[in-house]
Amino acid sequence: MTTIAEATDLLRRTPDVLRALLGGIDDAWTETTDVPAHGWRPKDVLGHLITGELTDWIARTERILEHGVDRPFDRFERFAHEDRDADATLDELLDRFATLRAANLARLAELATDADLDRRGLHPSLGEVTLRELISTWAVHDLDHTAQVFAAMAASHDADVGPWKAYLGILLRRDDPSATAG
Amino acid sequence: MTTIAEATDLLRRTPDVLRALLGGIDDAWTETTDVPAHGWRPKDVLGHLITGELTDWIARTERILEHGVDRPFDRFERFAHEDRDADATLDELLDRFATLRAANLARLAELATDADLDRRGLHPSLGEVTLRELISTWAVHDLDHTAQVFAAMAASHDADVGPWKAYLGILLRRDDPSATAG
Repeated sequence: MTTIAEATDLLRRTPDVLRALLGGIDDAWTETTDVPAHGWRPKDVLGHLITGELTDWIARTERILEHGVDRPFDRFERFAHEDRDADATLDELLDRFATLRAANLARLAELATDADLDRRGLHPSLGEVTLRELISTWAVHDLDHTAQVFAAMAASHDADVGPWKAYLGILLRRDDPSATAG
Repeated sequence: MTTIAEATDLLRRTPDVLRALLGGIDDAWTETTDVPAHGWRPKDVLGHLITGELTDWIARTERILEHGVDRPFDRFERFAHEDRDADATLDELLDRFATLRAANLARLAELATDADLDRRGLHPSLGEVTLRELISTWAVHDLDHTAQVFAAMAASHDADVGPWKAYLGILLRRDDPSATAG
């Protein structure tokens, strides 16, 4: 079961992972969305992760610790980044995310210990959840969306791999989610 | 269309991305496979990437430049890592991959220029391919398998996210490849 140390060991890495992957990279890799309709470019994913740092993970931790199940979480604004970050560059978003994440991990360490992880809160759609589930979800949400960045970057070169596409699940799934590489 | 500079800009990043993600991380994140049957742990993915550096990408580049379509590529040994790397630690594999990748990018720069990218070779199953397709595939293959590492890491905490799993496509796809997050 996830501990705060274990979750933090993952969460502190994500800004460095994204910077290693995207910092200063050629635009040819970053202007395509992961899926054709309603997909996200790497920049959109960064914006979504920033929204989580600004309004979600720590606010929900505080809500659990202050109000338990008596007051539900505010809803996660999944498209808040669209207007907010329209003029920001990818490199600016990488810096912003790293700053926010570091501050939030410092705040988490002040707020909670492993003894708090079974405390409960109320999700507006999912019902009762524990702080352990919230912290675990924060980390897995990072993994989910960072993987989405890889899918968008692969998609940018879909036309360039020729017949090898048949072996590249990350491209095949863009056309058909159930596809597996041959 | 992919140039050597563009492919290299991606390929040089992968060892740093994997080190930022995995270097010294708590084992709790790295002992699960991406899919239940025949899946790979992060360590297995590193081994597979190392095989590519040892026997595939540069050898195939040389084959195209020396023999064109007259002599097909050797087959990629997709499971060569299983015996070779059984005793290696994840951190040792990260170091090994970084060393091999740096040497291979230096070798690529010696071997080929963009003027060579339309030269053709013969894949044993896929037929005629260009050097441009080979170099593009090298990069997208990195993205595909690094995304697989994220899926394996997410899977390690599948049981810890509680009802949030309904929103986490990276976990839902492990049970059902066609699943999309609610």
